[in-house]
Amino acid sequence: VKLYTYFRSSAAFRVRIALNLKGLAYESCFVHLPKGEHRGEAYGRVNPQALVPTLDTGAAKLNQSLAIIEYLEQTHPSPALLPTDALGRARVRSLSLLVACEIHPMNNLRALQYLRRELGQSEEGVTTWYRHWIADGLSKLEAELASSTRTGRFSHGDTPSMADCCLVPQIFNARRFDSDLRPYPTTMRIFDACMALDAFDRAQPSKQPDAE
Amino acid sequence: VKLYTYFRSSAAFRVRIALNLKGLAYESCFVHLPKGEHRGEAYGRVNPQALVPTLDTGAAKLNQSLAIIEYLEQTHPSPALLPTDALGRARVRSLSLLVACEIHPMNNLRALQYLRRELGQSEEGVTTWYRHWIADGLSKLEAELASSTRTGRFSHGDTPSMADCCLVPQIFNARRFDSDLRPYPTTMRIFDACMALDAFDRAQPSKQPDAE
Repeated sequence: VKLYTYFRSSAAFRVRIALNLKGLAYESCFVHLPKGEHRGEAYGRVNPQALVPTLDTGAAKLNQSLAIIEYLEQTHPSPALLPTDALGRARVRSLSLLVACEIHPMNNLRALQYLRRELGQSEEGVTTWYRHWIADGLSKLEAELASSTRTGRFSHGDTPSMADCCLVPQIFNARRFDSDLRPYPTTMRIFDACMALDAFDRAQPSKQPDAE
Repeated sequence: VKLYTYFRSSAAFRVRIALNLKGLAYESCFVHLPKGEHRGEAYGRVNPQALVPTLDTGAAKLNQSLAIIEYLEQTHPSPALLPTDALGRARVRSLSLLVACEIHPMNNLRALQYLRRELGQSEEGVTTWYRHWIADGLSKLEAELASSTRTGRFSHGDTPSMADCCLVPQIFNARRFDSDLRPYPTTMRIFDACMALDAFDRAQPSKQPDAE
């Protein structure tokens, strides 16, 4: 399979982790987001959403990171990134969506650029916005993780799941903007447990061939 | 089952449609978002994410609309809201996530309130922001729907899917802010096909008991 990726993209990072956890080798195609390569005509034929990542399976080009991870789960079930019980699956999906819908969209590159360029916000305004949504979202994640008996060494039990594939890139993103992470001890304990694993470590931005 | 809902919440609207499509009766608990009831202590015990909707199954309280719909799909498989083939499932999930991750987070109530109250944006600035993300996101959705042979009477084939549960509330939201929807003929054709069905029609905001 071929993965269209950019080293700093949190969404691509999620899929890199999932591929590594499942032991699937992949070829990388690098899409330079700051240069706008994702908005070009060539990439538009790969992904009509003009977003990274895309997974080219040969049979089809799949996009949206969580849809890709669910596809990998169905086609390569072992090791599992979702539990088998319906309530457990709902919990892992909810934790994943909390990051993917409530936190990340607010502070990805294009949202911050739009605030700066089109709405005339100062750097201070942009940082205020960024930190607000990080704090809002990570408080919710911490509340979920700290309040459930199903939280284990990882977000759900003692093996990594799709929720961890989302948690880790979000923490990298938050650190890049110097967010205060001390209020989220459960989240950070899980982050550390993840990063001790090779599958997470190898997927991190600075270890990608396109890292700058 | 019990659904914590607010008539205008797009995320709750998605779940109302799914419950109706599957023919599942539910009891409604109304959470008044503009009054901030979702941020109160009582609701915090229902949903640590302080967001609507929550589905209380008796055994557990589930949150995040797409996680709830996936749970309903696993526990009440018929009629199906996801196809059975892995590539089809990936496509329906991707279309759903395109709405849930790329469009809706940018223009839900709390994002607009934050722009207005904390970043000092004028109504004009807020409207510019809103319309930008609607146009950006719906163009991508239209490109996906118009370019695929798998699009049928609905987003995926000729029966409604999870993708339609996401598409319809997003169009209601866009109309509320007077967005120009003429550039999205495929999307709007599917919207009309959905609204001709009782399951969608009954779920719409103005037909909820808590509508104002």
